[in-house]
Amino acid sequence: MSAPGNSSPVLDKACQEALAALVGSDAVLIDAADRAAYETPARYAGGTAAAVVRPATTAEVSAVVGYCVRNGLPFLPQGANTGLAGGSTPDAGGGQIVLSLDRLTAPLEIDVDDRTATVGAGVRLSALNAALEPHGLFLPIDLGADPSLGGMAATNTGGARFLRYGDMRRHVLGLEVVLADAAGTVLTLSHGLRKDNAALALRQLFVGGCGAFGVITKVTVEVHHRPRQSAAALLIPRDADAVLPLLLAFEAQAGASLSAFEGMSKAAMTRAIDHVPSLSNPFAGGVVPDYAVLVELTRTWAPREGEASLDEVLQQIAGEVLERDDSPLTDALFGPAEKMWALRHGLSEGLRASGPVVGFDLSFRRRDLARFRREAVLMLEADFPDYALCDFGHVADGGVHFNLVGPTDPERRAMLREAVLGLAVDGFSASFSGEHGLGRAFQDAYDRFIPRLVQDYSAAVAAVFGAGSAAVRLGPALKS
Amino acid sequence: MSAPGNSSPVLDKACQEALAALVGSDAVLIDAADRAAYETPARYAGGTAAAVVRPATTAEVSAVVGYCVRNGLPFLPQGANTGLAGGSTPDAGGGQIVLSLDRLTAPLEIDVDDRTATVGAGVRLSALNAALEPHGLFLPIDLGADPSLGGMAATNTGGARFLRYGDMRRHVLGLEVVLADAAGTVLTLSHGLRKDNAALALRQLFVGGCGAFGVITKVTVEVHHRPRQSAAALLIPRDADAVLPLLLAFEAQAGASLSAFEGMSKAAMTRAIDHVPSLSNPFAGGVVPDYAVLVELTRTWAPREGEASLDEVLQQIAGEVLERDDSPLTDALFGPAEKMWALRHGLSEGLRASGPVVGFDLSFRRRDLARFRREAVLMLEADFPDYALCDFGHVADGGVHFNLVGPTDPERRAMLREAVLGLAVDGFSASFSGEHGLGRAFQDAYDRFIPRLVQDYSAAVAAVFGAGSAAVRLGPALKS
Repeated sequence: MSAPGNSSPVLDKACQEALAALVGSDAVLIDAADRAAYETPARYAGGTAAAVVRPATTAEVSAVVGYCVRNGLPFLPQGANTGLAGGSTPDAGGGQIVLSLDRLTAPLEIDVDDRTATVGAGVRLSALNAALEPHGLFLPIDLGADPSLGGMAATNTGGARFLRYGDMRRHVLGLEVVLADAAGTVLTLSHGLRKDNAALALRQLFVGGCGAFGVITKVTVEVHHRPRQSAAALLIPRDADAVLPLLLAFEAQAGASLSAFEGMSKAAMTRAIDHVPSLSNPFAGGVVPDYAVLVELTRTWAPREGEASLDEVLQQIAGEVLERDDSPLTDALFGPAEKMWALRHGLSEGLRASGPVVGFDLSFRRRDLARFRREAVLMLEADFPDYALCDFGHVADGGVHFNLVGPTDPERRAMLREAVLGLAVDGFSASFSGEHGLGRAFQDAYDRFIPRLVQDYSAAVAAVFGAGSAAVRLGPALKS
Repeated sequence: MSAPGNSSPVLDKACQEALAALVGSDAVLIDAADRAAYETPARYAGGTAAAVVRPATTAEVSAVVGYCVRNGLPFLPQGANTGLAGGSTPDAGGGQIVLSLDRLTAPLEIDVDDRTATVGAGVRLSALNAALEPHGLFLPIDLGADPSLGGMAATNTGGARFLRYGDMRRHVLGLEVVLADAAGTVLTLSHGLRKDNAALALRQLFVGGCGAFGVITKVTVEVHHRPRQSAAALLIPRDADAVLPLLLAFEAQAGASLSAFEGMSKAAMTRAIDHVPSLSNPFAGGVVPDYAVLVELTRTWAPREGEASLDEVLQQIAGEVLERDDSPLTDALFGPAEKMWALRHGLSEGLRASGPVVGFDLSFRRRDLARFRREAVLMLEADFPDYALCDFGHVADGGVHFNLVGPTDPERRAMLREAVLGLAVDGFSASFSGEHGLGRAFQDAYDRFIPRLVQDYSAAVAAVFGAGSAAVRLGPALKS
């Protein structure tokens, strides 16, 4: 699909020169080799960009967006290009301009008293956390990538500590955005206040908006005190139905020190243990159970004299739960938190190393998790015995990475996708994108599962702000 | 202003009969005596309603809204009428219909496993919490009134435990709304999922939307495990500049068990102690300090054997902070939490009993709190020596009830309001409505302080959903 040589497949010389005049010629990538990294997503198929434009300031973003809108050039905002929904990479048509925000790395301002940080959209999570670390602070969104803050806001990133800290929406205190109109209007939405109900919540549209309402150029986030103690264990629930009672027991007994409750299926754990060389099997006799939960407790303070350690607290809670009549727990393994997390973080790599993965980022009311899994297993056994279910997820917030490993035949994959999403969304009112946001890869699901009325209103609201970006087609009212 | 006798000042007989046909004649209040409770707000001046209409179901709300829109009758949604922004009571014109949701008290469904509740918009916070209590759960929005859940969602209520639990936005997992269009369109926005990024965040517009986008009829909220231990203390900071370092020390040392950090000025405390008969003076020798902070720690679990009690933890933290060089703390008083909270909760009553109050619900970046207070005190001493500053507030989230007691002369009050809001909003980018939402009483502030561009986009977005309600005029694009 990629155009050979030095010329853009679609963008004419005049447009290239006009863009270069706005941001400098070094910041307009036309060559296929230069474009490649911006065209290849972390998941799903890549495409071909007409060009990659890399403005370095909000003013330059505004100029580029305005130029694109006035000239009818579709564009796609891109942060660190780590998204899992195809929202930041162009399609195969070669007609979309990638608007990369990776040079928007200023400001990176930390206000310790305010416990906030204000950063350019291109600042990476790792860079922000490195700057926060000396102050004992961090942005507690934990995920297996290093996204940009703009991308995190645009996709409303969740992650493994959602149950304790919530998603990006909970942390975004202010945004600067550039609207996709002919003027490239710059809008400042709040100034970093924790509470503000003096105006309507326009800012909230841009969080998770995936570019539909405009381009995020600056973000103010609330940050937190870093934990100074942590303890983790692997819990073995009695059976699938015991996972939720187990969670409720830990929620009540550990309160807000409960910072992770990650479910892992046997198939997912086995693949990680078998295929990730650095991992050792943590289970007694090497027997991997049907299901395990990684539970983590954290505290922001250093150990105090006379205070039970978190390891002791965790053992005490697990012990109490184990002793209950009809206990939801059959065993608990204690050990270094890093070792437990290594298993959890090794799941995705283990799956990929074991075969081609069909990934799902589903979200349920958590009471539905066990029943969905039961019904899905029956359906998969009957209709898709050639796929192995290797699910894992964030039980406490209802999120499941309901991933399968199996054949790559596109038609068969499409049938599998249809069957899983149909059961989840039609049968359980689940979300087909719990924490990965919206993108090209989910267009068909959006068209099929989002109620027409919601599509129509979304498109009409987006139209208020301009032409939107090309990441997703919201509905007939916007672009048909 | 109120019309005498049995007839509505504006609504003609045909309209009265049409509304009665939709909801039953008992649910259309025309008599002045029947309307009175719905016309009188908790703060600011009341007005006169053309009628009060009390639908009992979403279908009836839809029918009433559709009828009003088709016939050009302005209406105002009202929950429990406890708001502090004049958003739920009619103006003096007599032309607005109050759409009371107080009969929408079904459903009241609790899902213990899911830790969620789904309720009709008219369900009161006290009723929800009474139903949750046997399950050890509660909705942790703590405030000095008993609002309806619909009203809480529409105004994005905050409260005294915001620092631990956040506002309503953080808790609302799903909404059912009726749009102000000719059809009274019913829109369901999510089904109670904790994570859902498969569609755009239209729901977020309605949270804090104060009726501008439509009428909330049903709410799903996340609820929490109730604390089973709590401890409180009154902290005496060294001076105004020490409040923030004190907060940061407690945030780091108490982590998420820190559930309140409420600042109280000497003037506010003195008025409460002097005017609320049930209160006793908690300070040594009865000497009220210049400023005090009510700090509270809570835990969701029952005391464990061998575990330090929360009282001990609180004393330990305060002791450590007291011993620091250049400590931000000069003293700490310990005692029963109820006694500490009685003082905090008595502040509003104490102020009212001591004289006429001019209330402000300001919100700052918390780093600006001390500097604003200093500048405001100088300004008040110079220009408004006849008003006594009796401020108190939620330090951790930047909220200040910057209340003053003094003359009722309308012109002088208007000047005071102008001076305080001007300093706060123009000087510090503060919000003039941190947690009370938008309403008629803040129309002038909205018009003056909200940037024209934000007003225009807000009005345009609201117009997408229909005519909106009459609570606030958003901008020239909506209603002029």
